[in-house]
Amino acid sequence: MQSYTVSKLLSRINNTLLPAADAHIHISDMSVQRGYGIFDFFKIIHNRPVFLKEHLDRFFASARAMRLHCPLSREALIQAIEELIQKNDLPQSGMRLTLTGGYAADGYSIHEPNLLLVQQPLQLTKELQPGIRLITHEHQRQLPHVKSIDYLMAVWLQPHIRQQEVADVLYHQQGIITECPRSNFFIVNKHNELVTPSLNILAGITRKKLLELAAGSMTVKEAPVTIADLREAKEAFVTSTTKHLLPVIQIDDITIADGHAGPVTSALFGELINMVFS
Amino acid sequence: MQSYTVSKLLSRINNTLLPAADAHIHISDMSVQRGYGIFDFFKIIHNRPVFLKEHLDRFFASARAMRLHCPLSREALIQAIEELIQKNDLPQSGMRLTLTGGYAADGYSIHEPNLLLVQQPLQLTKELQPGIRLITHEHQRQLPHVKSIDYLMAVWLQPHIRQQEVADVLYHQQGIITECPRSNFFIVNKHNELVTPSLNILAGITRKKLLELAAGSMTVKEAPVTIADLREAKEAFVTSTTKHLLPVIQIDDITIADGHAGPVTSALFGELINMVFS
Repeated sequence: MQSYTVSKLLSRINNTLLPAADAHIHISDMSVQRGYGIFDFFKIIHNRPVFLKEHLDRFFASARAMRLHCPLSREALIQAIEELIQKNDLPQSGMRLTLTGGYAADGYSIHEPNLLLVQQPLQLTKELQPGIRLITHEHQRQLPHVKSIDYLMAVWLQPHIRQQEVADVLYHQQGIITECPRSNFFIVNKHNELVTPSLNILAGITRKKLLELAAGSMTVKEAPVTIADLREAKEAFVTSTTKHLLPVIQIDDITIADGHAGPVTSALFGELINMVFS
Repeated sequence: MQSYTVSKLLSRINNTLLPAADAHIHISDMSVQRGYGIFDFFKIIHNRPVFLKEHLDRFFASARAMRLHCPLSREALIQAIEELIQKNDLPQSGMRLTLTGGYAADGYSIHEPNLLLVQQPLQLTKELQPGIRLITHEHQRQLPHVKSIDYLMAVWLQPHIRQQEVADVLYHQQGIITECPRSNFFIVNKHNELVTPSLNILAGITRKKLLELAAGSMTVKEAPVTIADLREAKEAFVTSTTKHLLPVIQIDDITIADGHAGPVTSALFGELINMVFS
């Protein structure tokens, strides 16, 4: 990645391409004023977007749910994405699409949204990583099916996460697990079934792909997972666009099985990496 | 207000004064990326900030709670506020102080915060307004004691509010009332006591002043208020920096008393206006 001069990358704000360093918006934008906006983020490998259809489906679904009208049609957005990828020529990277509430005259109501496209370098690994540790935290995201920019709680918890020397928090509501702030959560239960929460979560794209992959070889369930279930879990992992699949070996004081990534985790990681990099 | 050319107003971003129209920040700011920031807003009357001490107390308390280090000391901030007021010369106005999570290299962690000072025209009335109607909505703000920029739910509910032809929502959690998105809530109960919620709310400055004023003439309680309590309430109102005190005459299907502003509401409004404009 070092061979690319990131400072020469272009970003796009609405219909204007401009150097990433000059990508500014007016402070009356509803993201700055009221934390109001949505986004999506996808990988680019060999200069090709990965799972673009699914990310755009979710992006437009988030926009609709948040009552934000995207200034570009789906076709025009795809064209803008392709143009930016071509100009930046950063073969392995990530692109963030953000849609904000726009410049509200009253500082409070949705206006004509601003659309931001930012491409950036992205480090990815094809090796299964060591297992991470999590701590639970009781919290429910607002409009959880929407990929909104609201990460207030997640960012606020960062010092706590660092102090506890864990990788992330795992949100739950009264003991019912939902998700991590930026990844979906899975366990292999005592019956060797793959189980992931289905309610009050963001519908992750990697989650969706993983469920499809796993369904070929094991019983897959979208169903409630409780903190109590963790004590009997044989394996646990999280999935996300950038992390792909990361083993989880401890949650609070609960060690998952023997504290090492299990066989299902390893096998699914391999299948997922093959799919992503194919 | 029409005599002021708003487009000539200055704003301040960190240490730079610049025309309000040119007040931009880079889109990597944590407000745009993660909805992370705090603010405060105070009135300026006769070119003098109103209740500045209280607003600054809350501003710095919000910053501390959100782990944001203000780049200006309290004294330097007061100086910056006074300089902006002098240069803009907009005798009756509002000033918004915003402190964001800054330009995060990783797009996720708090960095050196950006401080934004924006002065704008402000319409205020000295006349008691007709009563407003509210609808309840079950929601609890994140870190409620913090004046964060998180208004996702409030903005999202705007079309619903308009459709219901009411002025605002009143948040509650399992029937226990907290606040409106931008104002505090009070009732006069059947025992002629003034009661306002004290838990899981923003500590409004007007709320605080009102409680002090009212304590001179009646029993004042900071205590839980339930939706059930509304049916027996003799009066209800909301308070805020811009609205001062606004009678509430209906909440969902509950008409407060006879549907008109009551004597306590009227008397307290008069006292508050006297204090603010003195």
